[in-house]
Amino acid sequence: MTTRLVVIGGDAAGMSAATNARRGNPELEIVALEKSDWTSYSACGIPYLAGGDVGELEDLVVRTPNEFRSQHRIDVRTGHEVRAIDLDRRRVEVRVVAQSRTFSLPFDELVLATGAEPWRPEIPGIDASWVLGVQTLTDAQRLLELGEGSRCHDVVVVGGGYIGLEMAEAFVQRGAKVTLVEGSDQVMGTLDPDLAEPVRAALEGKGVIVRTGVKVLGFEDDQRGAAPASGGVVVTDAGALRADLVVLGTGVRPRSQLAAAAGIGLGAKGAITVDRRQRTDTEGVWAAGDCATAYHRISQRRTHVALGTVANKMGRVAGINLGGGYATFAGIVGTAITKVCEVGIARTGLTEREAAEAGFVTVASTWSGTVRSGYMPDAGWVKVKLVAERGTGRLLGGQIVGTEGSAKRIDTVATALWAGLSVQDLIDADLAYAPPFSSVWDPVQRAARATARQLS
Amino acid sequence: MTTRLVVIGGDAAGMSAATNARRGNPELEIVALEKSDWTSYSACGIPYLAGGDVGELEDLVVRTPNEFRSQHRIDVRTGHEVRAIDLDRRRVEVRVVAQSRTFSLPFDELVLATGAEPWRPEIPGIDASWVLGVQTLTDAQRLLELGEGSRCHDVVVVGGGYIGLEMAEAFVQRGAKVTLVEGSDQVMGTLDPDLAEPVRAALEGKGVIVRTGVKVLGFEDDQRGAAPASGGVVVTDAGALRADLVVLGTGVRPRSQLAAAAGIGLGAKGAITVDRRQRTDTEGVWAAGDCATAYHRISQRRTHVALGTVANKMGRVAGINLGGGYATFAGIVGTAITKVCEVGIARTGLTEREAAEAGFVTVASTWSGTVRSGYMPDAGWVKVKLVAERGTGRLLGGQIVGTEGSAKRIDTVATALWAGLSVQDLIDADLAYAPPFSSVWDPVQRAARATARQLS
Repeated sequence: MTTRLVVIGGDAAGMSAATNARRGNPELEIVALEKSDWTSYSACGIPYLAGGDVGELEDLVVRTPNEFRSQHRIDVRTGHEVRAIDLDRRRVEVRVVAQSRTFSLPFDELVLATGAEPWRPEIPGIDASWVLGVQTLTDAQRLLELGEGSRCHDVVVVGGGYIGLEMAEAFVQRGAKVTLVEGSDQVMGTLDPDLAEPVRAALEGKGVIVRTGVKVLGFEDDQRGAAPASGGVVVTDAGALRADLVVLGTGVRPRSQLAAAAGIGLGAKGAITVDRRQRTDTEGVWAAGDCATAYHRISQRRTHVALGTVANKMGRVAGINLGGGYATFAGIVGTAITKVCEVGIARTGLTEREAAEAGFVTVASTWSGTVRSGYMPDAGWVKVKLVAERGTGRLLGGQIVGTEGSAKRIDTVATALWAGLSVQDLIDADLAYAPPFSSVWDPVQRAARATARQLS
Repeated sequence: MTTRLVVIGGDAAGMSAATNARRGNPELEIVALEKSDWTSYSACGIPYLAGGDVGELEDLVVRTPNEFRSQHRIDVRTGHEVRAIDLDRRRVEVRVVAQSRTFSLPFDELVLATGAEPWRPEIPGIDASWVLGVQTLTDAQRLLELGEGSRCHDVVVVGGGYIGLEMAEAFVQRGAKVTLVEGSDQVMGTLDPDLAEPVRAALEGKGVIVRTGVKVLGFEDDQRGAAPASGGVVVTDAGALRADLVVLGTGVRPRSQLAAAAGIGLGAKGAITVDRRQRTDTEGVWAAGDCATAYHRISQRRTHVALGTVANKMGRVAGINLGGGYATFAGIVGTAITKVCEVGIARTGLTEREAAEAGFVTVASTWSGTVRSGYMPDAGWVKVKLVAERGTGRLLGGQIVGTEGSAKRIDTVATALWAGLSVQDLIDADLAYAPPFSSVWDPVQRAARATARQLS
């Protein structure tokens, strides 16, 4: 008898699981159910679509449903939304979106790859049609409809994290007046304050009006009753802001309601608890990607991140296991990167704050200088911060903010963290140097030397 | 009684040793003897000076003799050439270059930081005034004299390694017609042939005439007897080439004649043998930088490299030990980087060839694709090759050639090599992704996945 694998969610994690399962087991029947019309798309590319760097929505689609059907014999069904999981009868209840009909589909193995969704804080008016989250291509489509054309003058971005920054830049690039409102005292709460400062400067340099320490209290339509409203007012504790469009950069949360309703166990931040092979607590049910928990190698805690890299890896691990192989997800170290104009922003491991929360006593040091040899004509600035454990000197984290060529150096730190290296190891490491690329001691090593002095 | 430390050579290794010794021991008397007029300069910057990216020779000087005197109380004597080391009497014989007088200077501790010198193959006419090596600022000065002005139309570069490539680009940039002659079948002999091919294409794209498999037989002055000759003919086994200037990119060799004459032991490629603390085989005599051997962590052999990074590290280690501290040089993994126009070229660890020579049985795989997400407008090409040990899957080396943003990723591989990671570790590693920086699987990880398939 054929085993049927049902995958819920047709993006990175789901389709990685499906293709890897297929590679391992040609006999498997694989059905992938996707609510939207798209599979395997780059949500991370949406800000660049909004900003005009990427021409077409379709450019963000890595592989189409037909490619999966023809190349991998995966029965991809777009426009199919799973409404419930019946664990006793081993079935999912599926709604065909266009036809509003439902049917039930039995499974032997089930992969939950339901992703994450923008967090919509409970603020009056947040469901207004001109207040948008950014997560799916459906969101992107709506964003383009509202953002394009002459009527979009004033954009308010709520939240100063990755998506907030990227969307603020995108709309400045489109010629809008953009105000970024952030409740805390700094943009990029994933950086320590000293590294967040130059990020704010870069935003302001680009023309974004940055308002930190300002809380949003509500959204009010321009013309009450007229639908759809074409904008309105963002009410904050520091006055009202007119907006044709509001973009929410308030973070995401795992889409785990289906799993929870079925009684599948949840963990950190409401994400679905998985083990190292991506198995949930329920026999034959797997989870991967933005809806699942991830083990953090430095804090040694289960946590939740919503990143394409992690989703792809988890999906691959689940798929290999489902295909009869053996693979484990080795965890994360908390690496992330973005940019505002020419300023790259990256982090890995734990910030000082996060390290303290995880119970470490730390030393930290920030080095500021040039990315390349100072005498080269294009030697821009960079700041590198490293956090290390007191006593042992083990690296705990790194943050980099700087001009072109800076931010991707975070991979050096991420690899060092991965391997459990110390600050001294980083000083000793044989990193590449030539004047167009680096100074003779790489900025990461300069920061390591500064940190070593703190340690001794 | 004060201990006197004498340092021979005032560039990276020597002055790192001197300053670190000073930091550790304020009582030490430190004398640094430098043959030329400059201390602590970036030899790696000379091609960019020649090409016009860097304006002034002095820009390449990181710290002047006066800075060392005033900030570190180091008695720097430029224009002082050491002619002999008398180990029995613990003295060096010093010639004051400008005055042609000599004196002898006693030492308690001695650091040999004599660097490397361009290798001048024994070819008739190689000592012609228009045939130049590139190693010191004195060379650079001569190069600028000959290279500037309207008479320098035809430049022949001999040797297709780092310096050869950089100098070829520099003179094309100055408007010269440049022919690069290389005896072997490929440029960049430090890469495997498949990765060297796009480097050749980049050179040719820039307008360099590349002649591989061509051996230089001699150099003949235009006007025999007239001195100094302003160019001549490069005779090769494939015809003669007219040249106003020849730049030798034939590699360097350690400047270890002084040490050898004193009976201090030499090792790999004639470099001065040192232990992990940078001690030679002779009590109280240390060596660091381009004149000393280096331990290669992957081949597990003592070897010789002439690189600013290594020189700085070795000098630092010697200095810390001389200052009363304890430090060891942890070795190299063979990392190097350069660029031709917009094409970056980098390597670390062992190539397939080198790994075979070191006795490894390997698998290797090359991945070709885009540096960034393919839908981004500036997503250029990149090739990443990884070499791994068969059976264990341990990483042995990596090579990267590609457009802007590619080459410095070698540090990820270098750090992985440093830590002894496997191909699987590199697949698992939490590297940074956002569309302007990378595809969701970093190119290095794509290559790792391809290599893993070879392993299984």
